Amino acid sequence: MNSTYPTQDRSGLARVVPLVGWLRHYDRKIFRHDLVAGLTVAVMLVPQSMAYATLAGMPPVTGLYASIVPLVVYALLGTSGSLAVGPVAITALMTSAALAGRADGDPARYAALAALLALLVGGIQVLLGVLRLGVLVNFMSHPVLSGFTSAAAIVIAASQVKDLFGLNMGRAETFPEIVAALWGAATTAHGLTIIVSLVSVAALVLLRRYAPRLPGALLVVAGITAVSAAFSFGDRGVKILSNVPAGLPVPALPTLSGQDVQALLPAAIAIALVAYLEGIAVAKTLAAKSRQQVGPDRELVAVGAANLSAGLFQAFPVAGGLSRSAVNFSAGARTPVATLVTAAMVALTALLLTPAFHHLPRAVLAAIVVVAVLGLVDRKGAATTWRVRRTDGLALALTFLVTLLVGVEPGLAAGVAFSLGVFVWRSARPHTAELGRVPDTDRYRNVQRFPGLLTDPRFAVVRVDGPLYFANAQRLSDQLLTMAGQRTGLAAIVLDASAITDIDTDGATALAELRERLAGHDVVLHLATVRGPVRDLLDRAGVWRSVRDAGHVHPDIPTALAAAEGTPAGDRTTLAVVGGGADREVQ
Amino acid sequence: MNSTYPTQDRSGLARVVPLVGWLRHYDRKIFRHDLVAGLTVAVMLVPQSMAYATLAGMPPVTGLYASIVPLVVYALLGTSGSLAVGPVAITALMTSAALAGRADGDPARYAALAALLALLVGGIQVLLGVLRLGVLVNFMSHPVLSGFTSAAAIVIAASQVKDLFGLNMGRAETFPEIVAALWGAATTAHGLTIIVSLVSVAALVLLRRYAPRLPGALLVVAGITAVSAAFSFGDRGVKILSNVPAGLPVPALPTLSGQDVQALLPAAIAIALVAYLEGIAVAKTLAAKSRQQVGPDRELVAVGAANLSAGLFQAFPVAGGLSRSAVNFSAGARTPVATLVTAAMVALTALLLTPAFHHLPRAVLAAIVVVAVLGLVDRKGAATTWRVRRTDGLALALTFLVTLLVGVEPGLAAGVAFSLGVFVWRSARPHTAELGRVPDTDRYRNVQRFPGLLTDPRFAVVRVDGPLYFANAQRLSDQLLTMAGQRTGLAAIVLDASAITDIDTDGATALAELRERLAGHDVVLHLATVRGPVRDLLDRAGVWRSVRDAGHVHPDIPTALAAAEGTPAGDRTTLAVVGGGADREVQ
Repeated sequence: MNSTYPTQDRSGLARVVPLVGWLRHYDRKIFRHDLVAGLTVAVMLVPQSMAYATLAGMPPVTGLYASIVPLVVYALLGTSGSLAVGPVAITALMTSAALAGRADGDPARYAALAALLALLVGGIQVLLGVLRLGVLVNFMSHPVLSGFTSAAAIVIAASQVKDLFGLNMGRAETFPEIVAALWGAATTAHGLTIIVSLVSVAALVLLRRYAPRLPGALLVVAGITAVSAAFSFGDRGVKILSNVPAGLPVPALPTLSGQDVQALLPAAIAIALVAYLEGIAVAKTLAAKSRQQVGPDRELVAVGAANLSAGLFQAFPVAGGLSRSAVNFSAGARTPVATLVTAAMVALTALLLTPAFHHLPRAVLAAIVVVAVLGLVDRKGAATTWRVRRTDGLALALTFLVTLLVGVEPGLAAGVAFSLGVFVWRSARPHTAELGRVPDTDRYRNVQRFPGLLTDPRFAVVRVDGPLYFANAQRLSDQLLTMAGQRTGLAAIVLDASAITDIDTDGATALAELRERLAGHDVVLHLATVRGPVRDLLDRAGVWRSVRDAGHVHPDIPTALAAAEGTPAGDRTTLAVVGGGADREVQ
Repeated sequence: MNSTYPTQDRSGLARVVPLVGWLRHYDRKIFRHDLVAGLTVAVMLVPQSMAYATLAGMPPVTGLYASIVPLVVYALLGTSGSLAVGPVAITALMTSAALAGRADGDPARYAALAALLALLVGGIQVLLGVLRLGVLVNFMSHPVLSGFTSAAAIVIAASQVKDLFGLNMGRAETFPEIVAALWGAATTAHGLTIIVSLVSVAALVLLRRYAPRLPGALLVVAGITAVSAAFSFGDRGVKILSNVPAGLPVPALPTLSGQDVQALLPAAIAIALVAYLEGIAVAKTLAAKSRQQVGPDRELVAVGAANLSAGLFQAFPVAGGLSRSAVNFSAGARTPVATLVTAAMVALTALLLTPAFHHLPRAVLAAIVVVAVLGLVDRKGAATTWRVRRTDGLALALTFLVTLLVGVEPGLAAGVAFSLGVFVWRSARPHTAELGRVPDTDRYRNVQRFPGLLTDPRFAVVRVDGPLYFANAQRLSDQLLTMAGQRTGLAAIVLDASAITDIDTDGATALAELRERLAGHDVVLHLATVRGPVRDLLDRAGVWRSVRDAGHVHPDIPTALAAAEGTPAGDRTTLAVVGGGADREVQ
């Protein structure tokens, strides 16, 4: 296999339609790779897309619809050479949760709402991409995503138990609802359906483990469909797909109502971010391996356009999928042409092969979903994260529990809000350290951490680790004032500002007031190593000039101490910092 | 006047009831000061409290009720020697806004809701104080408070126009509603009422300006009430207070309904924070002047208990007031005994003097409110703040506009949300700087800011100003990878971590991944000056050990560069950083 990967030429027309850039250096050898990869992904995508369609609450054939035009659109606009776009489990679950209870049991209205949701998701993604706001996804931290994904995988698996056991029960969305409904419907379990499910799950797991190169889902679908047709499983009470309509989807704008748009908007935002995040993460990883480059905001526009087309072609929201992209890459995909091959194969399937799915039991699709998502449950993550940082572990646990017990959107929202809250709370209580000199150097270190540092009772050197802003300025000011009030003989405080990374008007005011109040205690405030942006703001606030003119601004701590001692600043060698570190030693 | 101030003894019983601590060093001389101050505040408080009661939508006499028991409770528990608690304008406005439209025009229900609100405010304050969460008020930045106060003052003034002009109009809460209602009722303006208002405002302004030591409000109230009684203003269409009931309030628990509690809770939280903030700010300022000390969380408990008692005694939320506290202090208040004197005077007034207010025109109370609040409008603040930092100016403007046009709680909430959003957004895009060596020193500075620094094309020294966490870790990692990809001949990146003030699990993961990916570009990542808390987390995340064992951790930049160059770390004098600063010089 050729290991060279074409890079994308991004000049001229290729700026608008990146596919043009890929084709400039295209040749037959590259096409052979793309062809093999495209076919490989197609045999995986056909059963998966139908399975995820049922997960989303949609007819199976719409999974195929979601895997034709959106793939073509992504192939035209995407910057990743190996990302495989289409229906994915998590966004299918989120789609189902967003539409739950909104269609009053009317499948046509449900489908129209799903298409509307895809349009909204696409619109939001294109907008964010154009505004270069793709960085917004970074506000979903990994602990939050880990908790969210694990809980979503469990909810997805639970939602498939109905089809795996052939139960007669209504739709249920959240985990507690599903468990209650399953409990109520347990007696309706259907023996033959359970056997089909067990065989399917076992075959999928064994094939994935021992023959990972074979298209497991396709083989299971083909095998069980053949058996189901031969023995008329449909007549024996096994739910089969029955008539899957043949033909390609035709474009249609779903009927829009302002009320529906408003109701679906929060879900659309959540899906837009999660769908983009899943894709960009895998695209970046694969691009690093192939030494290609992805443009994050361009990717957002590309997947957004794919979602817009999904909404126009009677489908539901799509995303760049983790597992299919990995298969695409390892099967040799070089450029988005592979995705075009996949789309063509799915289109042929929709045109010609849908009658073949008539006898396919729904339980097989459920088995495909369950086997696909169970690997997503991150069992060790919580413990590891908790060990590294308590609050990150709490964010993970909170997201997991709220997603499982309340719902996917509340879970994600709670996780993001909690982790931002923790960040702000920590910033409001920044770490501060009193510093002492490392003997025989000009380096200053935290006296609480390093034994044997030299200090001088006349001078306190204090480092503040964090921005000085409205939420913490008062607190820091109080801290230093208390120090000045408690230590007799203190003549100066040197504020090591090297880690004060930002400042606002409240920070500037607090600093100016602190200087005055310290002066009331006969303590001089010296500033050392003030960062550029902080200096600029202090200047605009009218604080900098007076501090500097008083000679209380210094490039580093030794200079500041020399000035505090009254020694000429240039004459640093005369600085005599006397002992005192001993009584502050820590073991 | 004696200028010594007793400090509070905080041992034994005084820990629970601070008043005991004050009384341990009490003598007649101190009492003389407290007596004068208490009487001075009382003559100010009687008319003001009745005026603020009407602003809160309550009968005037409840202003007196709010100024008796709550003052006694605060005097027992407060740690400030000069804070004057009672009804204040902003919380009266917030009370009125919170109760608007909830009482269905029933005064008894309105009064019960006001008492319930006071109980909620008190409960929240006591809870926050016990949990030591007084720092929460710091999340209201000065720009937000400035915009809020200015808008609230304008809304308050507008709400008084009705009484100043004797208009017949219903209640209106927000500024647009008030303006519309005033416009509709303009033709009902009453000539004599307007004259009373003009005289009152003029007298109040002139007395404050030219005779600031005289009790202006009391003189105006007494003078105009006398004229009003002599010429029967009440019969001439001027709205007068009529029957003000005599006697002291009796304790009663307002009827509680869960629905009312839920409806009032957001307002109660806002009032609890604003009321505390107004008090603690002035208490701290006065304590600094008198070299006394206030305990912020103790103050929260004390003012919370005062509010609980206000709720029990048929009043409405109270706070430590700015202007009366200043008067209390300058009149010589030494201890909370001054507040006890004030409370006794107000109680006497409620018992004996209420008939004297029969002929007092409501317009006079409105004039007192307007004159008190107009000084609160901060006309220069917005421009100054905008000049120092754009986002702080925007926070001020946003809070002002939302408070004025939508309401007090939405205004405060919008301001806090916006300023936190700005803080998080800035932290997600931290300032980074490439550093060069200051010739003939070991100091490194931003090459974009300082001309003539020495750099070496083989090594990039990069400083990141801010915590490395989920919202920015990916971005920083991408930035350094792009640098490694673009610069040929780059052998090492030295990350100056001196300003990386915090790190989370995502930051640790990103750093580990960055190291590996840079290695793929044949670039070594060195860490210099890693702060203690950051080091601890990297250690727990399993990252620290491998970086340290590889010899890529250094106490400072010169050591890191020496190691990158392959020079023995201890032998720093052989470090030869070659030129290159010239082409990066900035003017």
